[in-house]
Amino acid sequence: MFVKIIKQKKIMSLIEDLNWRYATKRMNGQKVPQEKVDYILDAIRLAPTSYGLQPFSILVVESEELRKKIQPVAYDQPQILEASHLLIFAAWDDVTEVHITAYINDIAATRGIPAEALQGFHNTMVGTVQRLTQEQRFNWAAKQAYIALGTALAAAAEQKVDATPMEGFDPLGLDVLLDLKSKSLRSVAIMTLGYRDEANDQLVHAKKVRRAKEQLFIQL
Amino acid sequence: MFVKIIKQKKIMSLIEDLNWRYATKRMNGQKVPQEKVDYILDAIRLAPTSYGLQPFSILVVESEELRKKIQPVAYDQPQILEASHLLIFAAWDDVTEVHITAYINDIAATRGIPAEALQGFHNTMVGTVQRLTQEQRFNWAAKQAYIALGTALAAAAEQKVDATPMEGFDPLGLDVLLDLKSKSLRSVAIMTLGYRDEANDQLVHAKKVRRAKEQLFIQL
Repeated sequence: MFVKIIKQKKIMSLIEDLNWRYATKRMNGQKVPQEKVDYILDAIRLAPTSYGLQPFSILVVESEELRKKIQPVAYDQPQILEASHLLIFAAWDDVTEVHITAYINDIAATRGIPAEALQGFHNTMVGTVQRLTQEQRFNWAAKQAYIALGTALAAAAEQKVDATPMEGFDPLGLDVLLDLKSKSLRSVAIMTLGYRDEANDQLVHAKKVRRAKEQLFIQL
Repeated sequence: MFVKIIKQKKIMSLIEDLNWRYATKRMNGQKVPQEKVDYILDAIRLAPTSYGLQPFSILVVESEELRKKIQPVAYDQPQILEASHLLIFAAWDDVTEVHITAYINDIAATRGIPAEALQGFHNTMVGTVQRLTQEQRFNWAAKQAYIALGTALAAAAEQKVDATPMEGFDPLGLDVLLDLKSKSLRSVAIMTLGYRDEANDQLVHAKKVRRAKEQLFIQL
C-alpha cells in the first residue's frame, strides 16, 4: 500500500510541479542553493535539440552589480534584481559548417567511432542549414533554445525554485551590454531563478488561465 | 532513512528521466495508454508561454491510415508508423487582436474580473504583435510551441513513454495534407509517442552526446 502511494506520487509529479509554478513577478531575494542551480543547468544540457546540435549558450548571472545594469534593458522589471540568478538563453547568431564539423567530432569522440562514419549525417546537417538564410538559421537555433527553456522550467518547478520566463527585454540592448556579438550569440529569453514574494506578488494566488482543451487539442 | 531515500529519488527524478530518454528512431508499435497520452497533453496545456497566450494547437493523430499518409511527407521515417500516437505542434500563422481580445476575455472569466481592468495588458500585447511582421509573429508563436515541446518531452520521459521530437518533415506538405491553412495553423514539429524497439534501434544504447558544460554555460 505504501509503495502504491509513492508510485502514484511519482506518476503525478510533473503535473503537480507545473500547477505549482507561475510566472513569478516579485521575488524575495533569497538565494537559490548552488546545487539547485547546477541541477537546472544539467536539465538544460540534457534537453533534446534538432540533430542534438544545441545551438545556444546559457549565460549565468548572479552578480547583483551586473543585474543592476541589466534591469533597465529589461523595462525595469523588479524580478531582475529580486531574483537569485538570471539564466540568459542566447542562440547562435548563425549555424555554420564549422559548428557541424565540431559536433561530428564530438559524437565520434564520445561514441568511439571514426568521424568518417558520420559523413552522411554531416552532409544532412550542412544541407539543412544551407537551405536557410542566416536569419532563418538564427531563428532555428532560437527554437532549440526554447525546448531547453521548457525543460529548465520543469526542472526549476521540480526543485521548488520559482522561475519566470521573460521575453520582456530589449535583446539588442542586452547583446550590447553583455558583448554577445563577440561570442556570436544573440539573447532570446531570460529565465529568473529565485523564490516568490508571497506578500507582494499579486499573481501568487491568481487562478491559472489556460486555453480550453477543445481549442488547444485537435483529435484527427 | 527510508524517507531520505525517497526524497533523494524525487530530487533526482527529472534528470534521471532525461538521461533515460533519447530520440527513438525505431518503435515497436505498442500502444500508449490513453491516460498517459492525456497526462502528456495536460503538461503541454500547463506549459508557460509568452503572456500566457498559447499561440498554437496540437493535432493528435492515432489513426494508422492517417499516419500512412503522413509518412511520405516525413521522409518515410519508420517511427511515424511504429509510434502509437503523433502529436503535431502547429503554431498560429498569425497573432491578431482578435486572439488577444479572446484571451483577455478568458482571463477575465477565469479570474472573475472585468475585462476593462485588463486594458493595459491588452494594449501591451497588441503593441508587441503590431511591431512584428506576420512572419515574425508566426516565428514568435512557433517558439512558444517549442517551450511546450520541451515540457511534453519531460512529461513523456517521466511516464516512461518514448518520444522523438522531429523537424524532419516537409511542413508545407503536412499543412496541405491536414488542411491546416483553414485552421490558420502551420506545422512546426512532430512528437512521436510510443515505445522503443530495443532490437532494431541502433541508437538505443548509444552514449548521449552533449556539449561540454564549459562551452554551453558562460558564468558572468
